[in-house]
Amino acid sequence: MESSNIEAVFNPRSIAVIGASREAGRLGYDVLKNLIDGGFAGELYPINPKAEGEILGKVAYPNITAVGAPIDLVVFAVPASVVAGILREAGGLGVRAAIVITAGFKEIGNVAGEEELKAIAKEYNIALIGPNCLGVISAVSNMNASFANSMPKRGKIGFLSQSGAVCTAVLDSAETLGVGFSHFVSTGNKAVLDEAELLEYFLRDANTEVIGMYIEDIAQPQKLAAILKAMRQAGQHKPIVVLKSGRTEVGASASASHTGALAGKDEAYDAFFTQTGIIRAERMSEFFDVLRAFDQNPLPKGRKVAIITNAGGPGVLATDAVVGEGLEVPKLCTATQEAIVPHVPAAASTANPVDLLGDAPAERYKQALQIVGQDTEVDALLVLLTPQTSTEILKTAEVITAVRDTINKPIVAAFMGGATVKPGVDLLTQNGVTVTAFPEEAAKILATLATFAENSATVSDEVFACVNINNVKASALLDKATAGGRTGIPEAEAVEILSAYGFPTLTSVVVKTRVEAEAEAKRINAPVVMKIVSDDILHKSDAGGVRLNITPDIAGDEYDVLMATVKANRPEAKLDGVLIVEMAPKGGTEVILGVIKDPALGHLIMVGLGGIYVEVLKDVAFGVAPITPTDARRMIDSLKTRMLFDGVRGGAPLDREALIDALGRLSQFIVEHPEVIELDMNPLLLLPKGQGARVLDARIIVGE
Amino acid sequence: MESSNIEAVFNPRSIAVIGASREAGRLGYDVLKNLIDGGFAGELYPINPKAEGEILGKVAYPNITAVGAPIDLVVFAVPASVVAGILREAGGLGVRAAIVITAGFKEIGNVAGEEELKAIAKEYNIALIGPNCLGVISAVSNMNASFANSMPKRGKIGFLSQSGAVCTAVLDSAETLGVGFSHFVSTGNKAVLDEAELLEYFLRDANTEVIGMYIEDIAQPQKLAAILKAMRQAGQHKPIVVLKSGRTEVGASASASHTGALAGKDEAYDAFFTQTGIIRAERMSEFFDVLRAFDQNPLPKGRKVAIITNAGGPGVLATDAVVGEGLEVPKLCTATQEAIVPHVPAAASTANPVDLLGDAPAERYKQALQIVGQDTEVDALLVLLTPQTSTEILKTAEVITAVRDTINKPIVAAFMGGATVKPGVDLLTQNGVTVTAFPEEAAKILATLATFAENSATVSDEVFACVNINNVKASALLDKATAGGRTGIPEAEAVEILSAYGFPTLTSVVVKTRVEAEAEAKRINAPVVMKIVSDDILHKSDAGGVRLNITPDIAGDEYDVLMATVKANRPEAKLDGVLIVEMAPKGGTEVILGVIKDPALGHLIMVGLGGIYVEVLKDVAFGVAPITPTDARRMIDSLKTRMLFDGVRGGAPLDREALIDALGRLSQFIVEHPEVIELDMNPLLLLPKGQGARVLDARIIVGE
Repeated sequence: MESSNIEAVFNPRSIAVIGASREAGRLGYDVLKNLIDGGFAGELYPINPKAEGEILGKVAYPNITAVGAPIDLVVFAVPASVVAGILREAGGLGVRAAIVITAGFKEIGNVAGEEELKAIAKEYNIALIGPNCLGVISAVSNMNASFANSMPKRGKIGFLSQSGAVCTAVLDSAETLGVGFSHFVSTGNKAVLDEAELLEYFLRDANTEVIGMYIEDIAQPQKLAAILKAMRQAGQHKPIVVLKSGRTEVGASASASHTGALAGKDEAYDAFFTQTGIIRAERMSEFFDVLRAFDQNPLPKGRKVAIITNAGGPGVLATDAVVGEGLEVPKLCTATQEAIVPHVPAAASTANPVDLLGDAPAERYKQALQIVGQDTEVDALLVLLTPQTSTEILKTAEVITAVRDTINKPIVAAFMGGATVKPGVDLLTQNGVTVTAFPEEAAKILATLATFAENSATVSDEVFACVNINNVKASALLDKATAGGRTGIPEAEAVEILSAYGFPTLTSVVVKTRVEAEAEAKRINAPVVMKIVSDDILHKSDAGGVRLNITPDIAGDEYDVLMATVKANRPEAKLDGVLIVEMAPKGGTEVILGVIKDPALGHLIMVGLGGIYVEVLKDVAFGVAPITPTDARRMIDSLKTRMLFDGVRGGAPLDREALIDALGRLSQFIVEHPEVIELDMNPLLLLPKGQGARVLDARIIVGE
Repeated sequence: MESSNIEAVFNPRSIAVIGASREAGRLGYDVLKNLIDGGFAGELYPINPKAEGEILGKVAYPNITAVGAPIDLVVFAVPASVVAGILREAGGLGVRAAIVITAGFKEIGNVAGEEELKAIAKEYNIALIGPNCLGVISAVSNMNASFANSMPKRGKIGFLSQSGAVCTAVLDSAETLGVGFSHFVSTGNKAVLDEAELLEYFLRDANTEVIGMYIEDIAQPQKLAAILKAMRQAGQHKPIVVLKSGRTEVGASASASHTGALAGKDEAYDAFFTQTGIIRAERMSEFFDVLRAFDQNPLPKGRKVAIITNAGGPGVLATDAVVGEGLEVPKLCTATQEAIVPHVPAAASTANPVDLLGDAPAERYKQALQIVGQDTEVDALLVLLTPQTSTEILKTAEVITAVRDTINKPIVAAFMGGATVKPGVDLLTQNGVTVTAFPEEAAKILATLATFAENSATVSDEVFACVNINNVKASALLDKATAGGRTGIPEAEAVEILSAYGFPTLTSVVVKTRVEAEAEAKRINAPVVMKIVSDDILHKSDAGGVRLNITPDIAGDEYDVLMATVKANRPEAKLDGVLIVEMAPKGGTEVILGVIKDPALGHLIMVGLGGIYVEVLKDVAFGVAPITPTDARRMIDSLKTRMLFDGVRGGAPLDREALIDALGRLSQFIVEHPEVIELDMNPLLLLPKGQGARVLDARIIVGE
């Protein structure tokens, strides 16, 4: 899609409204009226085969060809059956963009109709929004190409929503929230343009500084991830806040692996959002709060919050909330405290929270805010107000606004109460100061700002460079294991495939002579197990064909003893040699690594503590493949049992680097072998630092 | 305190305002004016030595004695220095209650002044609120004895707050929230009446059905717990919702035990609230939401929620939220679905959520609500509305109100949006229908109602009946171990003390002959260790004085061998016998049990998974001593590792009953030995079901 054509969705020079109507209450009337009322400055062409003369003061045409002038954008408000024909006509006329408000496509099972629109849009390179949507509003272009009858205030938020109802709710809330929008898109069925293209447009758009989206799924996750990465590398790092509904139950019924059983709920999307730097709001109120906060505040430099209050109890509540969100409420420095002292009564507290006392007038707030605002050790301010007898609510709101204008720091006000504080809340909202009813919401907002600022500062494009991969051999083994349509690959073969791919496994080799046995045992240089190799012997132990814990120095003798014993016990058997297998090293901790294919987002990589704790604790972390070393470290660090990796109670720290390498290798393996739909390495024995890891057991399942 | 006197705080026949003033803006003016404006129907006596004639139309008196008529309640609005004298005078006159708004007592270090008030109140049996408070408002008595200038609407909520600022914020929010109050108390310094007495009053009070409190601490936790238990046993089970600020860092610096290190933050209060059936709100917005929900709704019979919506996406968000809160969104039964069908378009969904589609008029909501409301399989309703083009917002609010009046089920509306939905929100609020802006808050409210209903149905007063306790012996051992001021009791002695108290420990006994050795080994009936007992032998193993893994059948022989070996190796040593110790059984799981004394709430009992997982997972649960069997079970069930107790991957289930007994025994032990300030049993080896448990190691610390 050429970006010049998506531009025509938001900033067209001319618009034709297909199905424009004179009849109030009809879709084609609402859309045209909204375009006129919104103040769109370009040309507007009502199109209606039955209309003559003017509609709403604009000359109407029977069809778009009759317009006889260039049309950038067509907006469809006609029945589904006629859309394709007119879209093709538009394509022939060089129309660059279309908004198909019309419903009646894929959402009611009319897949063919929707495919036809896609084909036409592709043929004529038309940037198409919808079908089945509310429309598009661009406050930047004064364009309300929707049937929502309110035009939001112009602002910095680019918004897209998969639900028309969420669009209407957000538009209706905008004034109450004090936020404005650059562009507002109801994406509908996303037949052509989806999140990926729209986010790219918003990220490039100079009018958009914050992005909000409500989605139920992501149309093209890999494409979206690639776009976000490219934009990030190009320095375009705007906050993207998402509200996603619906839980995916990955393979809930059919899953045969541990990994599959653990990847329930919404882990895939959580991992995707984390990896792509998208901020996920947990609830709708938070979604609005966070969008507003980014819209209204600069990013903080750190996590240090100063709390200014006129009430002690709420000050403690605020401190609890701020600390609970992972921020800090440090004691203010002596210089700052001393500067405040002359402006407050003796009983006031200047440490942090700064308690101005219940009778604090606006002037006291002003002095404290100015002083604390200038303190370079303070990264953000939380201003609490409770409506006490002498509280100057409006004046205090003015003071906060004025101070906000002089400091380049986030400042969030919590005005607690109802009717009495409302004038202050309204004033702050009008002035674009973030205000909440309660300290907890304010704390959450400040935490989200701080976390985004930190993540922006530490974007990494480091990639894995795993060595010692023989993918030719691994592929051959995988092909062999799945020959004849077999889908479940059992332990021995799975471990062999992983070994070929460079995963650390227990060394094993078949020897046929005493000399070979001695040489291989010496090479392995650790205790080994010897097992007779013979198709004729089922129960090897019963035949004396297994010897444990053999060190290199006795390997030759043991080989001779084993062969002699088996020959004596089973003289009829054909012996094919002796398998020497490294014994699993002592120490270390069992870890589980896995892969599960999510139907929506592709392959998920999983890591967690192994053994019975996989089931008991379900303490696992996910990443969407491919993952980066940063992702791998984050996954490990997000485990509740992460302390184990650093060594507990004097125990040796484990080989974290070996685990990170295994995660990277697994990611690469799954990218090269997408036919694998489930994989468990359970356990991977993670050894003390410097000693690596060993895959002790594995299972691979490939798709049909 | 006689309840007849606390009654005079809320429902006095006559009130004297000490310090009544003619000067607007003065405390004594505000209080008198508020009493008059509030419509108090009893006698009002302004008291001021300088006043003559009338104040605000009421005859003023120079002092209370001059009134010459009975006074039930005195309200103090005079400087701290004169309060005690007048309070004593009031006591002499038979005044039953006092509200001391006056500040300047304990909160500024004037402990003596506050102690004096307490003494006078005690001497004259005066029910006293304050000092240092905002006052008391009783909507039931039309009495505003405070300096807050708004009288809340009469309702069912009894409210108390330790913070005057929180009082003003709540009063200010009341109208916005649509809630009313029976009584409203600012508790101030709680010199005489505290949470315990006030909650008891509210629980008995027929005008109060829901109780809210904001606290920073609990003055008398044991008394409060006892009152709540007694009231619960008497069938008085009203919802009590608490917002508590401030985190206790129990022994954060000085703690020497694992238990102490783990009992940080607010676990003590969390445990206290859970055990006493108090509902803790996590945030201020939730506090208001939950109070309102109890005020406005009956309790649900179960967890089944029907969601009715005019928008699909928000319906999914609501489902996510409801399920996320532990409620159910079951498919509606065929009969209900079939009853809805005639009233909705074909594209509507009748399963659950019931999606009435974006063009749903009020009538469609009405039909669906009536039908679903009558479904006996539905316990509660969540009604979603988004403001779409044809949405009838006010009418739908009326419909919801009307249906609410006909069904005895909780019904919470979520009207999403701002200005457009506001008239509907206001109407619902005025009509006492719980309404939120977002589905997540609605879901949380319904979950809180359901949980309270369940807990009310399962109140248990079951008590522990631990047997085999020799407290005389345990006390004697404890005294001996702490003789000479020793505070830390090491392993051997600690285990002996616990053994005397009936905790299962490894059996040990000293024998002096082969016959005794055989008898004791047979009695223990498990493998034992034999160790030589001799003050002369430091390194017992080196002297051949330790023999492991001895079964009863060889105990005699082993005794002889051991004695002979030691005599041969160390002929000079004096031998005092042989210690026979049961070996720790195989199998089972290590658990940690502990006690830590919280400065505010007393002894906390802790249980969790032992071993290195104590530190790695910090997966422990707390209870405030004494605990009940219900508490013990709840503590175990709240562990993330609880699955371990039921047996994992074919492993045997553990002896839960033994663990519950140990918790009960520990609770009883600590109640009888409150001088113990820390105790760790780490590990307690919990064996497979039927095999009990063994204390393998223990440590006890007593207070100075």
